[in-house]
Amino acid sequence: MSLAAAPGVAETLLDVFLLLAAAKAGDELCKRIDQPALVGEILAGVLVGPAVLGWVEPGETIEVFAELGAVFLLFWVGLETRIDDLRGVGRVAGSVGVLGVALPFAGGAAFATAVGEGGAVAVFTGAALVATSVGVTSAVLAERGLVATPAGRTILGAAVVDDILAMLILGVAVGLASDAGTDFASLAVSAALAVAFVAFFALGGTRFLQRRPGILKAPRFSESPLLPAVLLCLGLAAFAAEIGLAAIIGAFLAGMMVAETKEQHPIEEEVAPLYAFFAPFFFAAIGLQLDLDAYVDGRVLALLAAVTAIAIATKLVGAFLGALPLGRREAAIVGVGMVPRGEVGIVIAGIALAEGAVTNDFFALVVGMSVLTTLVAPPLLRAVAQS
Amino acid sequence: MSLAAAPGVAETLLDVFLLLAAAKAGDELCKRIDQPALVGEILAGVLVGPAVLGWVEPGETIEVFAELGAVFLLFWVGLETRIDDLRGVGRVAGSVGVLGVALPFAGGAAFATAVGEGGAVAVFTGAALVATSVGVTSAVLAERGLVATPAGRTILGAAVVDDILAMLILGVAVGLASDAGTDFASLAVSAALAVAFVAFFALGGTRFLQRRPGILKAPRFSESPLLPAVLLCLGLAAFAAEIGLAAIIGAFLAGMMVAETKEQHPIEEEVAPLYAFFAPFFFAAIGLQLDLDAYVDGRVLALLAAVTAIAIATKLVGAFLGALPLGRREAAIVGVGMVPRGEVGIVIAGIALAEGAVTNDFFALVVGMSVLTTLVAPPLLRAVAQS
Repeated sequence: MSLAAAPGVAETLLDVFLLLAAAKAGDELCKRIDQPALVGEILAGVLVGPAVLGWVEPGETIEVFAELGAVFLLFWVGLETRIDDLRGVGRVAGSVGVLGVALPFAGGAAFATAVGEGGAVAVFTGAALVATSVGVTSAVLAERGLVATPAGRTILGAAVVDDILAMLILGVAVGLASDAGTDFASLAVSAALAVAFVAFFALGGTRFLQRRPGILKAPRFSESPLLPAVLLCLGLAAFAAEIGLAAIIGAFLAGMMVAETKEQHPIEEEVAPLYAFFAPFFFAAIGLQLDLDAYVDGRVLALLAAVTAIAIATKLVGAFLGALPLGRREAAIVGVGMVPRGEVGIVIAGIALAEGAVTNDFFALVVGMSVLTTLVAPPLLRAVAQS
Repeated sequence: MSLAAAPGVAETLLDVFLLLAAAKAGDELCKRIDQPALVGEILAGVLVGPAVLGWVEPGETIEVFAELGAVFLLFWVGLETRIDDLRGVGRVAGSVGVLGVALPFAGGAAFATAVGEGGAVAVFTGAALVATSVGVTSAVLAERGLVATPAGRTILGAAVVDDILAMLILGVAVGLASDAGTDFASLAVSAALAVAFVAFFALGGTRFLQRRPGILKAPRFSESPLLPAVLLCLGLAAFAAEIGLAAIIGAFLAGMMVAETKEQHPIEEEVAPLYAFFAPFFFAAIGLQLDLDAYVDGRVLALLAAVTAIAIATKLVGAFLGALPLGRREAAIVGVGMVPRGEVGIVIAGIALAEGAVTNDFFALVVGMSVLTTLVAPPLLRAVAQS
């Protein structure tokens, strides 16, 4: 008897309100005790989610909101990034990406083998430890005004390299888990496609908008360039997802392209409300995934501590070594900045679970590791950046 | 093998992009031939939806986006509305609301009876003809700068009255359709609750924010009052939906409350990007509901023509008569402005279908009527407003 559209819609609207309100309450608390906002938002998700109160269930709509939070976040970060600035850190970002993938993968795979797991699980564990959540890192960088620093740019560039490598490792893992085996030819095609996609839009796309900065104002459907820019962002995000990359890579590229038109129309102000509205869902949804019941077992807790320590140490050392040409302090920022696994680790664990390759305990382990690395990074980054 | 979160999320992200892109293409075309944007957005929904191309399926997430489109639209309209302005047109809005409900209800019920339908179907038909889509009307008023006119305010006030009456009629219809019969005591409670909700926030809420306009800036989680205001908007929208009203009534009340703090911080600029992003989904989703196959039958087409004519004539005459104290021209604007049934008619038809009270043909009939009244109103309103 409600005019509020279908019953499911009214319920989801309530979920959206509750999750946003909880996230902002957590943000408020963290601000008052001088902690990063996203820590409060993740913990708010844990609190209202299935782990504690059970008020908000993760569902497709909440997940899409979360994804759009990451998309608008990276779009905004892209707006702050000029392709020429990235070129300057290209070589360092490349070594950070490669070393920041190699060490965590080796560490994760070795850990899984040490506790008696077989090949597919070992590769999945490595893959879960590989993935950096550039969304989480970007939010921390943005909060501390570090996006436009050499360390910030190196992290962003390395994250793109990371993501392509993670996609390949994941492909190998899925192949090992299935009977069909790994199809290296199609993996090579995926890799080539991913590299071509990134290169095409990062180089060609930015140059195109540099030459024709008025194009975003051409359509009559919008008085400002906001919606044309948003369409470019969503289009590249969806395209990136279609070819197996993270959607946020597409959003970041779109942001870099639009950044080339900034002299003509400052668009950040208009993107800010979209970012402010959606981003809390991204962080709170990470908290929604946590199932505290899984950690009452002492053995699982010990494994969680071990895998989290390995995840932090390998990524920190790998990225630090890669970034050393920037100097020790900047390299330390890059190392810490690459630590958060955020939603990417959770997604990989979810795929492993869906493939039937791992147990629920493994899933809980990776989710716990992802949340812990995400919570530990912001205060650490702050400490390192202030040193 | 995609890092773009769960497979369903990647697909929905693509749907979101396709629907927004189509809506904006439709908007662009309509702007170029000097037609209202929402007409293009609805037709774009018809084109990419199940009716023609089948690229985008209506689903929960799209429906939530559509609902948020209406919510932010009405929030924005509320921001343009001061409670003191509404008080001035209160009496007229009341008669517009009552007459604009009585005539369409009588017309719809009589039509259903004339074509041989029984009691429950007659009441459902009446209910479907009663509901005005203030979302559609608001968009047209906003596009033509008519929100802050006596006619605009009368329409908004009458729409609130409309919505409460429509909720009651729907309650009676659902009671008739079920074996349990109509529970008039609980209907009376619903009505009292709805009136109390509207009165409490329209009068008390606006006064509270008038006296403490700084409260939206008090939280530290937000540098601007945007997110506190959005939380108020979503909270009241969800609350309205919980007590059986349309969510947009809550959003409208929240907008009116925040409007009292406008001297302190102009918030419209920040709400505009949210409105610009979500509103196209509201209109395109109306188009998604249309199933053209239902209208290949000559008899259905004839019935559609008849019920649409009745829907237009009864609402126009009822609202016009109620608004006559404003003068003929303003009354004509009010009459035409109340014509669009938009999503509300579709929601009522959906409830009737879910109750098993009506056939698929009836559903298609009401959906067709809702879309046609929505498409016909904007050009008509423009003609009347220019006269």
